[in-house]
Amino acid sequence: MPRSPLSELGQRIQEPAISWLMRLTLSRPNLVSLAAGFTDNASLPVRETRRLAEKVLSQALSGQRALQYGSTAGDPSLRALTARHLRTEDRGALGKAVPAQPYDTERMLITHGSQQLLYIATESLCDTGDIVLVEDPTYFVYLGILQSRAIRTRGIRLEQDGIDLVHLEQVLESLVQSGDIRRLKMLYLVTYFQNPSSVTTSFAKKKAALELLRRYERHAGHPIYLLEDAAYRELRFSGADEASGLCAPGGADRVIYAGTYSKPFATGARVGFGLLPEPVYTACLRIKGNHDFGTANLLQTLLAEALSSGAYAAHLPRLRARYAKKAGIMVEALRRHFPESVTWAPPRGGLYVWAEAPRGVQTGTQSAFFRKALKAEVLYVPGDLCYAPDGHRRPSRSSLRLSFGGAKDSVIETGVERLGRLFNKAT
Amino acid sequence: MPRSPLSELGQRIQEPAISWLMRLTLSRPNLVSLAAGFTDNASLPVRETRRLAEKVLSQALSGQRALQYGSTAGDPSLRALTARHLRTEDRGALGKAVPAQPYDTERMLITHGSQQLLYIATESLCDTGDIVLVEDPTYFVYLGILQSRAIRTRGIRLEQDGIDLVHLEQVLESLVQSGDIRRLKMLYLVTYFQNPSSVTTSFAKKKAALELLRRYERHAGHPIYLLEDAAYRELRFSGADEASGLCAPGGADRVIYAGTYSKPFATGARVGFGLLPEPVYTACLRIKGNHDFGTANLLQTLLAEALSSGAYAAHLPRLRARYAKKAGIMVEALRRHFPESVTWAPPRGGLYVWAEAPRGVQTGTQSAFFRKALKAEVLYVPGDLCYAPDGHRRPSRSSLRLSFGGAKDSVIETGVERLGRLFNKAT
Repeated sequence: MPRSPLSELGQRIQEPAISWLMRLTLSRPNLVSLAAGFTDNASLPVRETRRLAEKVLSQALSGQRALQYGSTAGDPSLRALTARHLRTEDRGALGKAVPAQPYDTERMLITHGSQQLLYIATESLCDTGDIVLVEDPTYFVYLGILQSRAIRTRGIRLEQDGIDLVHLEQVLESLVQSGDIRRLKMLYLVTYFQNPSSVTTSFAKKKAALELLRRYERHAGHPIYLLEDAAYRELRFSGADEASGLCAPGGADRVIYAGTYSKPFATGARVGFGLLPEPVYTACLRIKGNHDFGTANLLQTLLAEALSSGAYAAHLPRLRARYAKKAGIMVEALRRHFPESVTWAPPRGGLYVWAEAPRGVQTGTQSAFFRKALKAEVLYVPGDLCYAPDGHRRPSRSSLRLSFGGAKDSVIETGVERLGRLFNKAT
Repeated sequence: MPRSPLSELGQRIQEPAISWLMRLTLSRPNLVSLAAGFTDNASLPVRETRRLAEKVLSQALSGQRALQYGSTAGDPSLRALTARHLRTEDRGALGKAVPAQPYDTERMLITHGSQQLLYIATESLCDTGDIVLVEDPTYFVYLGILQSRAIRTRGIRLEQDGIDLVHLEQVLESLVQSGDIRRLKMLYLVTYFQNPSSVTTSFAKKKAALELLRRYERHAGHPIYLLEDAAYRELRFSGADEASGLCAPGGADRVIYAGTYSKPFATGARVGFGLLPEPVYTACLRIKGNHDFGTANLLQTLLAEALSSGAYAAHLPRLRARYAKKAGIMVEALRRHFPESVTWAPPRGGLYVWAEAPRGVQTGTQSAFFRKALKAEVLYVPGDLCYAPDGHRRPSRSSLRLSFGGAKDSVIETGVERLGRLFNKAT
């Protein structure tokens, strides 16, 4: 039996849960999927993109520029417009002026979706055996990246306004005790309408977390970064915006901000971006060069045109109204069909509702409930997929993520009703 | 002084030569650049892409599909069309039927340019310290990927029709002697109009190389792959096509074929692809999922439409005629302005001419000649960038890569003339 030719990563990497869930969906045409993180089909900017493409491609010069290589960092105009947009958002959220430096165009890297930024930032900072702190629960695809690279994780409890700072300090302290603090590189937070919990991290918590991390740097012997994944930020349909960690004290030096146009504009025109401090920026730029020399210029040109023409700004309120409506349908259905013992909170943005069943009712991947749900033709993301396997606590086995993003309005209630029936039997 | 927070890769990765050359270009507006691997602006399919975009985006259903997430492996229609196109090409090149299995759509992975496929394939197979054999000279961006991952390299001498098989066997034998054969994972060949030498590898040599690698697998203890980078295959303007390694005996199991639509269609609509054997395919698919879940669906839809509508097939002859013309201008200028002591061969495709000056005339990055060329406002890629630092031979210091791809027709001769003047002084 010959040895595997694969690299350690190649041998280690597991099938992502998302593929397995997708296969389930494809093999059951009648399945109501409340699992996929897809965006709403009806709200995709087809007409807008048609107009943008027409504008860009009807002139030889702009057309050639869009169809030619660009630079690895990204289209200068898109980088500048994005940085400005972000600064305006943060100023609005903070209610006062924000410094210019964190939003410097030179710190901006355009990527093929923000997922690529997460990957590259992790490559640039983490070796096998290094440690990344994550929310408990967290974005399961990011857990897959960490797993494939044999990066260790510790989960930090999540509260209504972000991570539990007391728990964060306890974990940091325990890493000092064990000596592992020297391997700690990042805290990864999905700060807006988190995937999967829909929790938004308050600016106060971002500030406090940054302060806490900074205090432990002398133990670590190196900077500890906050990787702020803001993928859902633009999908806010109620409540006020929170400023990003970039404008917190020290944020410009320690926050890696990952944003995207995929979710708020078009997932099929994958353009993400990051604002990064040195030396991470330079390392990531070089890694991006090795990955693909830069994100497809055509996509970047369309997005830059969407931003500068006002098409993007006009699209956002329509999009938010759509998601507000869909969230409303789901919330209404949850009120009607779920027993009170299953807890959940109405979302204020994003694509998800996170529900917790009573302890006795297990909803995990291996549970009878999950199998029964499939039999009843409804799919959700089992909450247990969203917990880092850190060995320090037992992950919740009674939670589930329900997405109202991709499902059609008409089937959201059907799906919730089917789950509700199962819960009513089980509780 | 705190330690660097960067990973080993993050600390190790060097600025790519390409960025440094690009900066030189940007800082000198009058510079004639025969360095950039850009494609020809005038031949970019602006009108075609406009029509394709109009077709896709004028219907709600096809528009929504293009702007929604797709699957990680890629658009089923694009995968099938690409596999079929490739099989047809190989059948034409071989002059007889080719087996179906190597072109199975299930082995096809769509990537964000073929560069991403090179990166992912390397991630899937190679650990730090593993060995990849490369051509001498080879594609310098791929050398950068290997450098960043601390993968060791050995250069194999290049002849007019591909690598020197005797040298390949010598190197394999020496790896057996040193015990390093167990770390050998791949032979990387740019098989069509190679970057930088413009050499095309004959099918006979691919077959022989595959056979040779297979013989050494018992020493390695695992499969040894041929990574066939066919990025320039479609840019052939004279001579016959050579079949890919996929249809050589055993090719389906050992060839990783990387192709692209970037170069022949639009570098700004970066869509590449790979055909890969198991277990490499599954590992790469999972890694691709972690990188970005899949290449932007909009780009894939445009390309699928270009292939199925015949727009791509109609574009190719126009493109080839353009490059034939530009290559002709360069060849004519070389004949007129270069002394006979500088040797080069007229290209039959691709974007490059490779020239070798007499030994005494050094043209490398650190040479007086390169500085003088810059002073004379002409830039080329110094050949020494294209040699793997393998410590087993002294790389050529007297070669240069000249590109006729991106330069305007009118400046190609100017650039060559300036270099010719310098050569005439130096030789």
